Amino acid sequence: MAAENGFASAHESPTIHAQDLDQITTHLLSSPPILEMENHNGVSLNIPGCQCFQQVNMDMVLLSYNDYVLPKQAVRNVLLIGGGDGGILREISRHSSVDRIDICEIDKMVIDAYKRFFPDIAIGYEDPRVNLHIGDGVEFLKNVPQAQVTYDAIILDAFQCVGPDEKEAGDKCFLESVAKALRPGGVMCCPAESLWHTEFSLSDCIAKCREAFKGSVSYAWCTTPAYASGMIGFMLCSTEGPPVDFIHPVNPLNPENYGVAKGPPLFYNSEVHTAAFCMPSFAKKKMFGSKI
Amino acid sequence: MAAENGFASAHESPTIHAQDLDQITTHLLSSPPILEMENHNGVSLNIPGCQCFQQVNMDMVLLSYNDYVLPKQAVRNVLLIGGGDGGILREISRHSSVDRIDICEIDKMVIDAYKRFFPDIAIGYEDPRVNLHIGDGVEFLKNVPQAQVTYDAIILDAFQCVGPDEKEAGDKCFLESVAKALRPGGVMCCPAESLWHTEFSLSDCIAKCREAFKGSVSYAWCTTPAYASGMIGFMLCSTEGPPVDFIHPVNPLNPENYGVAKGPPLFYNSEVHTAAFCMPSFAKKKMFGSKI
Repeated sequence: MAAENGFASAHESPTIHAQDLDQITTHLLSSPPILEMENHNGVSLNIPGCQCFQQVNMDMVLLSYNDYVLPKQAVRNVLLIGGGDGGILREISRHSSVDRIDICEIDKMVIDAYKRFFPDIAIGYEDPRVNLHIGDGVEFLKNVPQAQVTYDAIILDAFQCVGPDEKEAGDKCFLESVAKALRPGGVMCCPAESLWHTEFSLSDCIAKCREAFKGSVSYAWCTTPAYASGMIGFMLCSTEGPPVDFIHPVNPLNPENYGVAKGPPLFYNSEVHTAAFCMPSFAKKKMFGSKI
Repeated sequence: MAAENGFASAHESPTIHAQDLDQITTHLLSSPPILEMENHNGVSLNIPGCQCFQQVNMDMVLLSYNDYVLPKQAVRNVLLIGGGDGGILREISRHSSVDRIDICEIDKMVIDAYKRFFPDIAIGYEDPRVNLHIGDGVEFLKNVPQAQVTYDAIILDAFQCVGPDEKEAGDKCFLESVAKALRPGGVMCCPAESLWHTEFSLSDCIAKCREAFKGSVSYAWCTTPAYASGMIGFMLCSTEGPPVDFIHPVNPLNPENYGVAKGPPLFYNSEVHTAAFCMPSFAKKKMFGSKI
């Protein structure tokens, strides 16, 4: 019997025990891989440029990205950096207002692997609004011609942009290149560290985003067993323009419109969306100076 | 510098590497132990009858228990089964309506260890309303004289009561003994499994609680990195009487009244309380048959 949370128990599937990247790649390219799962927890299989985790997590993670970045104003043009697996494309596909979905993925192998082994995730590519660019997202963003700045929403799923592990993408210039590629009042979503990460300063992160985007900035989080502390964080930012209320979804998903997905989301709904912005007291204190 | 989430980084403290229970016990009894922490995650130190995890988690977990079980009606008499570390006592202590706090803990060593090594948690025992009973909680509940049923709230922190790992405490008779020890409309809180546990049936769990308690039944959860899937669940149940709305706290904590604690809670507030009841779609579907 399928579990209530929608994914199979470890005991129902054979598992691959791989010691190194070569072995993992060999498995991946020769037969459909099965993620090794412990009883409660999902374990990430990391191969270069490709992180697999359980379907139901992705559903939440992607839908979080998705509805957060598609607020009030009609969103027509979306840019996705990374996310080559197709899952975020699948979730954007649920929104009928969108005319064009550009995706820039650096590694074509990720796309091929997901199309072969995870067709329910890669199904996002079947949306006819998708335009695929293979290349470096940082370069892609630098080269978005300013005269044609038309993105209403940009979703970053390629690198750690903010927080203690940020790489080149965390520098001010990169975040500014994202801001420049958005229309005024356009919105950006990217992963951020877990609140439990001892070296993550939420206040520094918010300050950096405010400086680069000059509009609204919010932090959200959701439960994600496959991640180290059991949660993933998100930064939601808008460029200068009318304030964006990320917390209350004004375009709830139409339950009859699945886009190219095969059914409604397993995890996401408007309630968990709003709950994702509720902050523990230690975080509120750092953000707003409140007592409790 | 202290991290924003209120506990020290692993890199700031020496750690104890112990191979077996004897070594752990030796360390515990000879010098204050330091929990081994990974970068993101808390690691539980399990010694018989005593589970230590990081302070900030406990704060949330205990406060969740606490405010959930102290709703609308003035709560005067509280029974705690287990929780010998004193942390839940500390949290109950914040509530001025309470006249009497009975605690039944099976293992005196737990109390002694916490008093010596975790005084900020064991501080709960300093509340003069606390009455300590050393003994088996199951027996204690069986022997609560029916003529003197006066508990407004019972908090179970001793065993897995409901779900796939339930032991004797999960049987119908045990839950009924809890219900019998409560006044009509009294409330019970106990740990429940994570929604991510593949073998946890939330619908079965709710049905079992409804049968035993015959009043309101709710499930809640919160982020808890030290637990396997990064979250802990709770069951909140009331006995026959006016329905209890567990979701909206009607007695928010008085930020000026810390009880015996040394400051306000690091994690808990009314927002995260209500957010804890927001269910992902797969769980809502099983509970209510809703589409999304």
